[in-house]
Amino acid sequence: MSTIGYEAWLRYPQLTDVLRIEAVSRWSGCMIVTEASEVIATAAAELKRGLERMLGVTLAARSSCDSGSGCIAIGTFSGGNESIARVFGDSGAQLDTGAEGFAIRTDAESGIIAIGAEQPAGVLYGVFHLLRLIATGASIDELDIVERPVNTIRMINQWDNIDGSVERGYAGQSIFYENNTIKSDLTRVEDYARLLASSGLNAIAINNVNVHHHETYFITERFLPDIARIAGIFRRYAIKLFLSVNYASPIETGELTTADPLDADVKAWWKAKADELYKVIPDFGGFLVKADSENRPGPFTYGRDHADGSNMLAEALLPHGGLVIWRCFVYNCKQDWRDRKTDRARAAYDHFKPLDGRFMDNVILQIKNGPMDFQVREPVSPLFGALPATNCMMEFQIAQEYTGQARHLCYLVPQWKEVLDFDTYAKGEGSYVKQVVDGSMFGYKHSGFAAVSNIGDNANWTGHPLTQANLYGYGRLAWNPELSAAAIAEEWTRLTFGSDEHVVSTVVSLLMGSWSIYESYTAPLGVGWMVSPNHHYGPDVDGYEYSKWGTYHFSDCKGMGVDRTLATGTGYAGQYREPNASIYGTLESCPDELLLFFHHVPYTHVLHSGKTVIQHIYDTHFEGVEQAEQMLRSWNELEGRIDTETFKLAGDRFAEQAEHAKEWRDRINTYYLRKSGISDALDRTIY
Amino acid sequence: MSTIGYEAWLRYPQLTDVLRIEAVSRWSGCMIVTEASEVIATAAAELKRGLERMLGVTLAARSSCDSGSGCIAIGTFSGGNESIARVFGDSGAQLDTGAEGFAIRTDAESGIIAIGAEQPAGVLYGVFHLLRLIATGASIDELDIVERPVNTIRMINQWDNIDGSVERGYAGQSIFYENNTIKSDLTRVEDYARLLASSGLNAIAINNVNVHHHETYFITERFLPDIARIAGIFRRYAIKLFLSVNYASPIETGELTTADPLDADVKAWWKAKADELYKVIPDFGGFLVKADSENRPGPFTYGRDHADGSNMLAEALLPHGGLVIWRCFVYNCKQDWRDRKTDRARAAYDHFKPLDGRFMDNVILQIKNGPMDFQVREPVSPLFGALPATNCMMEFQIAQEYTGQARHLCYLVPQWKEVLDFDTYAKGEGSYVKQVVDGSMFGYKHSGFAAVSNIGDNANWTGHPLTQANLYGYGRLAWNPELSAAAIAEEWTRLTFGSDEHVVSTVVSLLMGSWSIYESYTAPLGVGWMVSPNHHYGPDVDGYEYSKWGTYHFSDCKGMGVDRTLATGTGYAGQYREPNASIYGTLESCPDELLLFFHHVPYTHVLHSGKTVIQHIYDTHFEGVEQAEQMLRSWNELEGRIDTETFKLAGDRFAEQAEHAKEWRDRINTYYLRKSGISDALDRTIY
Repeated sequence: MSTIGYEAWLRYPQLTDVLRIEAVSRWSGCMIVTEASEVIATAAAELKRGLERMLGVTLAARSSCDSGSGCIAIGTFSGGNESIARVFGDSGAQLDTGAEGFAIRTDAESGIIAIGAEQPAGVLYGVFHLLRLIATGASIDELDIVERPVNTIRMINQWDNIDGSVERGYAGQSIFYENNTIKSDLTRVEDYARLLASSGLNAIAINNVNVHHHETYFITERFLPDIARIAGIFRRYAIKLFLSVNYASPIETGELTTADPLDADVKAWWKAKADELYKVIPDFGGFLVKADSENRPGPFTYGRDHADGSNMLAEALLPHGGLVIWRCFVYNCKQDWRDRKTDRARAAYDHFKPLDGRFMDNVILQIKNGPMDFQVREPVSPLFGALPATNCMMEFQIAQEYTGQARHLCYLVPQWKEVLDFDTYAKGEGSYVKQVVDGSMFGYKHSGFAAVSNIGDNANWTGHPLTQANLYGYGRLAWNPELSAAAIAEEWTRLTFGSDEHVVSTVVSLLMGSWSIYESYTAPLGVGWMVSPNHHYGPDVDGYEYSKWGTYHFSDCKGMGVDRTLATGTGYAGQYREPNASIYGTLESCPDELLLFFHHVPYTHVLHSGKTVIQHIYDTHFEGVEQAEQMLRSWNELEGRIDTETFKLAGDRFAEQAEHAKEWRDRINTYYLRKSGISDALDRTIY
Repeated sequence: MSTIGYEAWLRYPQLTDVLRIEAVSRWSGCMIVTEASEVIATAAAELKRGLERMLGVTLAARSSCDSGSGCIAIGTFSGGNESIARVFGDSGAQLDTGAEGFAIRTDAESGIIAIGAEQPAGVLYGVFHLLRLIATGASIDELDIVERPVNTIRMINQWDNIDGSVERGYAGQSIFYENNTIKSDLTRVEDYARLLASSGLNAIAINNVNVHHHETYFITERFLPDIARIAGIFRRYAIKLFLSVNYASPIETGELTTADPLDADVKAWWKAKADELYKVIPDFGGFLVKADSENRPGPFTYGRDHADGSNMLAEALLPHGGLVIWRCFVYNCKQDWRDRKTDRARAAYDHFKPLDGRFMDNVILQIKNGPMDFQVREPVSPLFGALPATNCMMEFQIAQEYTGQARHLCYLVPQWKEVLDFDTYAKGEGSYVKQVVDGSMFGYKHSGFAAVSNIGDNANWTGHPLTQANLYGYGRLAWNPELSAAAIAEEWTRLTFGSDEHVVSTVVSLLMGSWSIYESYTAPLGVGWMVSPNHHYGPDVDGYEYSKWGTYHFSDCKGMGVDRTLATGTGYAGQYREPNASIYGTLESCPDELLLFFHHVPYTHVLHSGKTVIQHIYDTHFEGVEQAEQMLRSWNELEGRIDTETFKLAGDRFAEQAEHAKEWRDRINTYYLRKSGISDALDRTIY
């Protein structure tokens, strides 16, 4: 197995520019590290590995600096490292770096670059930051940086199953499990921890939110010793371990006959379970719960609501400082397609809004970015901003379930940015989603980001080499939502492919264009779905149209789209605060890209773009294919500038994407030509 | 496990009418049997079991008759049974009963009912025939019957896999296999042999035509001892065993690097294989082969045609008297839906017609009844009558893959009758398909019927209690295609449920109406499909519309159907002889029920019925649901007249059918209302 894709953005290729080598080497005489903390040891090892690779030298670790040779000191402000104290003096504590932030300062006088932090985790993040600066070509001669993460919870969700499969995984099998056991060799888990920590993440739920039979026993002695082994690996990278739990665990394990959250035995069961867990994993993060959703058990079985359900677990975890992360993805998945009044989009808000204020302080509601399910385009969930008295966090999906499954390139950071920058008007204009999820808007006690991972045991982790950028970008954005999608793309590209400017500009351009291109040849104007049932790959316009999943487009011979207005539709638009409710609810003001999510319109309806809906469909689908073909050509121009393995691997996927985009184009165009009877104005081939 | 469903049409319930008991008992003083043949022993055991059950007496077997007491003598004309000789005298051999026919004669003078035949198989069929007469209430006082099967091959095809699954099986797992082995307890196989023999069948291929990895080894020493065990069971019931073989066996077993039929090593390999097989199973029937079809290997790989491919196997089997049954289900299953010229319906004819005359005498082409794949309605395959110089046989599917999967009642005998009664005009008017497949039209050396079984390890064999009638009916029709569907239905009903006339008339009426009802709420006017991909159950109008399988309806906002005319379409209609070619190819003369198979027409096209196509769709779908609901009501009226187990089991299925019919109705009506924009003239609810 080649290591090129495996090392991802931590390749740290040897610097080749002589002046650059000299500039960095000046500060790399030694590494000064004095603290015994496990995480600082990790930081030191990372710094050593990174610098040695880039410079081709050996970096000695010392406890103090020989005057004259430039050194890098790492440590906590109060940890007794004299070099740290010398550079930051008393100011360290005043820098307000918080539990995870760091300061980096180049002190010309002492010849030291110091990475200081209040806690070891900050030191680790500071080391990764410095390495990133060096690898991307920044000057380190005059550093004076203070960084702290904007979000306190920066989490990844693994949808891995104990049988080794990964639900919605498109990059191989699980790196955690195989054959109904936890792998004995966890080397790869450690390497994953490095990737996560280096992008700024600090929490992981290691099993699928759909907790099946065997995984129900993760919280029992059958699996706990191995889970603790995994927790130990992540702990070294300052990452807290969470578990997804089965709400019916007391029943499924055969110990009780109910899982009613108000039942005394059930409460006692979970309390005992929490005690047992924390004995084995003292810094255990808590539970991630999918309840009463898509056939999973939950409090509804007992006539209780989700506040009852989650608070019971939260009480059990409270003495240990644990959290309950409770997913809001609750809807009727057995809808009758004939019933046009029930609207899946309404479900999360309808379920959770009335419960605001009833959740304990250590419960967090995890809300998917949109009201449906990670489509290429949906509006932002109206729950963001609607729960002032309830901790909330964001859920994204890095795994491209509906966005090309790592066969198509779809760089998702621009989409996530749009979500985060959405104005909820919760406290007047300028009440952005990012301020809801970072906790600042309502003073949440806990909040942040979660996202479904896109990695598996493929050699390069993510299948498509370029979709590593989504994992990296997610971490960076969770750390700081103000970073631009382009800046993250460029950073990732330089770390991954080095400094060839032609490569950088091409790859950044491919990444930045990809979401829009993918959208253009798939479901139009925010209507979503149109994918093959179950596996969700490839076009099937009516794939879900007559099914129970509540995901319809209602296309007939005259028009299409879902009327979600208050006036004549399902009323979903009314779940937003004004002016959003009116903007979405009014045909004239609804943005084109969400038109069919909110309105049922004739094919001849004229968009703000000046095109009719039907012509927009034809045009975007023809253009999307041309753009997908252009992506392939652009990539192919990089031949010789990128390692042959990655070049070939990504090239094959771009070729597949270009071909598959044609299938999308032809099926959607044909479907709508047949249905509408309206010809393409440009008379292109539609079958 | 209750035995009621398990015994099927061999229940032989005790007679209750005193006069009837007396009438039968008069002839049941003893059974006279003198021959040692295994099949005659079977016949004797069946006669004993059947009579003892119906009369509640013990039937003694003797070698001669005590004068005065009425007896039943069974035996071959030349077998030395004096009672047989006494009744038939010299005339036995002149009755022309053939290898499998029989004569039954009541000889009042001697007090003997004699069942005589040339061969033991005929004796067995004669016994089943007599039992059937008694069980259905016929008088046996003056019998003088001569019967011989119209078709020489009357075969059943099991699509059973060694892992225990049954491809397109809707009645449980395999009765032959489990866990990649042949079952050690084959009791159920023997009971299946009884069912088959009693309905007149004489051949079975015991494994799926899609021969997977393990099944490839059926023709090796790994499985042959167990296969021989199965052959032994069927031999006792005069049923020959065939095996489906993998065309690439020489490669897959690792012994050769090619399966080229013209390669000397390949020929030698199969010759040796045949020798080995016949050593273990001296009366082995031969091979059933699916080649170059749906990703199965075949001669095309080597640039050979199907004559080359099958003749090579036939040569290997020839010295042993074995047959090669070669399936004509060959088509391109990777079609591009954009390509409207390629027509799957044409494929079998296009492949095989040019090869007529090139096949060896022990090769038989097995042709599906229609050009597509066992749809509820398709035209008859134009290959029937087009191969005067090639042995042909019919392939039906008893398993209701596309006709309700044993959840819906669909009695298929009326459909099969239509196929058999179709006039091919191969030798002028009156050249019916039944005369092609019985071999009489062209003097085929071998010919007959095959059908895919519908049984599994469900308690009652077929899942839906009433679909036993399809298995029984198939056997009876293979024996004599002149039997009417209604007569078979009544015979089966009386054997299964006894003589309650209300039960008989209700069940016969349910059976006889069921095909038409199923057709009415599913795909309209011969267009076919509209089922969910892969499992083929339930409605999905566009399920195959944009796929590679070549099964389209081309519905747009103006009309639907496939233009298969010579003038403007794929030319399929031209594969028929005149006048069929013109009848089908001309819009005005094409029968309504096949209109959309042959023509693409506007929704407003007026059928011979006087209705427009769109109104026909609406009407039949509303009516079909009403009829399905009526079936449930009719069945429920039988409460108390039928054993409670069967009553409940079938009742549940009728209820499910009525409910599922609504889903069909609503999806198809909604699809076409949305697509056509034309309202229902009766303004019924369409969603």
